[in-house]
Amino acid sequence: MASGLSPVAQRAARLRALHTRLAHDELDALVVTHLANIFYLSRFRGSAGILLVMPGRATLIIDGRYVAAVRTLVDSDTDGAGMAVVQVESSYEETLCAALSASGASRVGIEAEHMTLARYDWLEQTLAGSGVMLRPTTGIVEAGRLVKDAEELAVLREAGAQISVVMEQALRRLEVGRTEREVAADIDWAIRSAGFDRPAFDTIVAAGPNTALPHAHPTDRRLALADLVLLDFGGVYNGYCVDVTRVASLGAPDPVATSWHAAVLAAHAAALEAVRPGVRGSEVDGAARAALDQRGLGDAFGHGTGHGLGIEVHEAPRIGKPRPTRASPGSDADVEDPRLEPGMVFTVEPGVYLPGRGGVRLEDDLVVTASGYELMTSVPLDLSVV
Amino acid sequence: MASGLSPVAQRAARLRALHTRLAHDELDALVVTHLANIFYLSRFRGSAGILLVMPGRATLIIDGRYVAAVRTLVDSDTDGAGMAVVQVESSYEETLCAALSASGASRVGIEAEHMTLARYDWLEQTLAGSGVMLRPTTGIVEAGRLVKDAEELAVLREAGAQISVVMEQALRRLEVGRTEREVAADIDWAIRSAGFDRPAFDTIVAAGPNTALPHAHPTDRRLALADLVLLDFGGVYNGYCVDVTRVASLGAPDPVATSWHAAVLAAHAAALEAVRPGVRGSEVDGAARAALDQRGLGDAFGHGTGHGLGIEVHEAPRIGKPRPTRASPGSDADVEDPRLEPGMVFTVEPGVYLPGRGGVRLEDDLVVTASGYELMTSVPLDLSVV
Repeated sequence: MASGLSPVAQRAARLRALHTRLAHDELDALVVTHLANIFYLSRFRGSAGILLVMPGRATLIIDGRYVAAVRTLVDSDTDGAGMAVVQVESSYEETLCAALSASGASRVGIEAEHMTLARYDWLEQTLAGSGVMLRPTTGIVEAGRLVKDAEELAVLREAGAQISVVMEQALRRLEVGRTEREVAADIDWAIRSAGFDRPAFDTIVAAGPNTALPHAHPTDRRLALADLVLLDFGGVYNGYCVDVTRVASLGAPDPVATSWHAAVLAAHAAALEAVRPGVRGSEVDGAARAALDQRGLGDAFGHGTGHGLGIEVHEAPRIGKPRPTRASPGSDADVEDPRLEPGMVFTVEPGVYLPGRGGVRLEDDLVVTASGYELMTSVPLDLSVV
Repeated sequence: MASGLSPVAQRAARLRALHTRLAHDELDALVVTHLANIFYLSRFRGSAGILLVMPGRATLIIDGRYVAAVRTLVDSDTDGAGMAVVQVESSYEETLCAALSASGASRVGIEAEHMTLARYDWLEQTLAGSGVMLRPTTGIVEAGRLVKDAEELAVLREAGAQISVVMEQALRRLEVGRTEREVAADIDWAIRSAGFDRPAFDTIVAAGPNTALPHAHPTDRRLALADLVLLDFGGVYNGYCVDVTRVASLGAPDPVATSWHAAVLAAHAAALEAVRPGVRGSEVDGAARAALDQRGLGDAFGHGTGHGLGIEVHEAPRIGKPRPTRASPGSDADVEDPRLEPGMVFTVEPGVYLPGRGGVRLEDDLVVTASGYELMTSVPLDLSVV
């Protein structure tokens, strides 16, 4: 984990690390099409773009909508590494082919997990005979993103503190008679007002039986006395995502709800207890699952215990049940179920869901440290009674 | 354009139309992986899922997070067409392979524009020897989505009316001293409160020189007297997107800004004037462009005149400059530059951008009718002075 470097130096370090990986994989260039990877390497945030990386240089291909914005980006880049900017004339694919042909690169990696079959086939046909050979790769840039650097951790810590404030306020403001949708609108306003670029995903406000839906959409249901209310939301802060979940009871909680909450709290504690370098993600998941099994609620926990956080709201590492190798594209034990390392950032979010009745989930964000973990979110874990 | 049918009957009609296209393309089945296409055919709205469509039946593959939500969906489907639901055990890809092997289908289409190379290669290797032959296809479901049916138009009209109300209020509430970010947070709140599921994209609030960035991100810049302020936002309403842009002046407008606004207004009118069945999207774009050329502002207009709207905020038809055929994957004159038909829905949004100085864009949403067009958004087009 680099530290004490300026943001510009951090970014130059990311490109240098990528060059090392390209050399190791015997690639002359990498066509980066996944927008999260482009942002990681260049700070460019648009809805379209291609970054062509070669040792010592990078070319950002963008369309006319982003020319003025990118000028600022390139002008403020004072590390001397430089990034050329090329504007699309007819299509991204044609512009990429022209840049590749002009580059002299012959072994050119593409991101197989982020390029569509149609685009790949088109590029292959168009480049036939040009001397450029496309080579499918997986996870080359993601390997660098898995362990956060000092700049990223600073952003994530600040974001975690801010989202915690938003959660504490949101819990205090719950009141009988308001709809789930109204509460969600207020939360989204508070997320923006706290300095986030946007909510990290559709804010979940679920009340009463709706808490049994892990991915509930806010409805026009009005909060009622004795309802459990589950709030799960996140924000994107300087390009990085954080995510937190808490549950409140409107008035004195039902004893059954209290027992669900106690079980999830135990699972949350067990998962945190398991976090340290060298442990596999599946072991953290197993610890949470065992705590719920002990309380007879193992079957009520239908999702993984957590997910990595960073430029994407779901990224590596995976904190879930181990999957058989080759069960999905790109799967391999060390990618699917990595051993934790200091600087990895993920959520811990066990939950129980009883269809038609209700549910509870408690979620925090952490970074793995040399000896265990550091929480980045901080909201009391007890069942708030409002 | 079907009309007078119930929503359930409309959906059954969409599946029947798809079956006809599959038969025409000599396919036994289609693996639908694009989430917008899955929603169009099944009403399922999740962040993951696969729909396997065969004549007379459809199988929705989902993971544990969505089981309870999907039960409601399937139970409320009273058309008898039926949709089987299968829950993922290990991975989506494994579950799909099992379903395909069990189906007896041999010629199986996949969506080449929406499937990654990694997933395709994995499926092909796993299915080798099973009798299932994967065939890359493009735009099969999208062909049905291009012309909206009565149910979709009803949703889009309601959404257009609602977003117009949000815009009128937002323009009235602009005031000196507030930041772009604060104004954006208020707009997002109003979008949610008006009944939208969420903003359709990152709300744009750009003031002063920031109006020169077509895709500006809201900053902490405070609105100042004599600023131009550009508001561009949209909302997702029952799964469908609308999108509107207006510009205001804080205090008496600068004469140059007034001239930009007049030019864009003329381009907007010229584009609308060109809309009718049989005309190509590029002709609508050309009409707007000619109006700006006449006023010496052609070079200041760096994007297309519009984009289709529907389940996605950018979809077909394309309303832009004609592109050379084969400039990009799947391109073909009738897809890239279609002739307009009644029921197509798109934006008209010419703009001018003068780097470092400012810009103006005016955007409305319309549906093509038998004789011309019907606007779905309705906000006064004059330069609001607030």
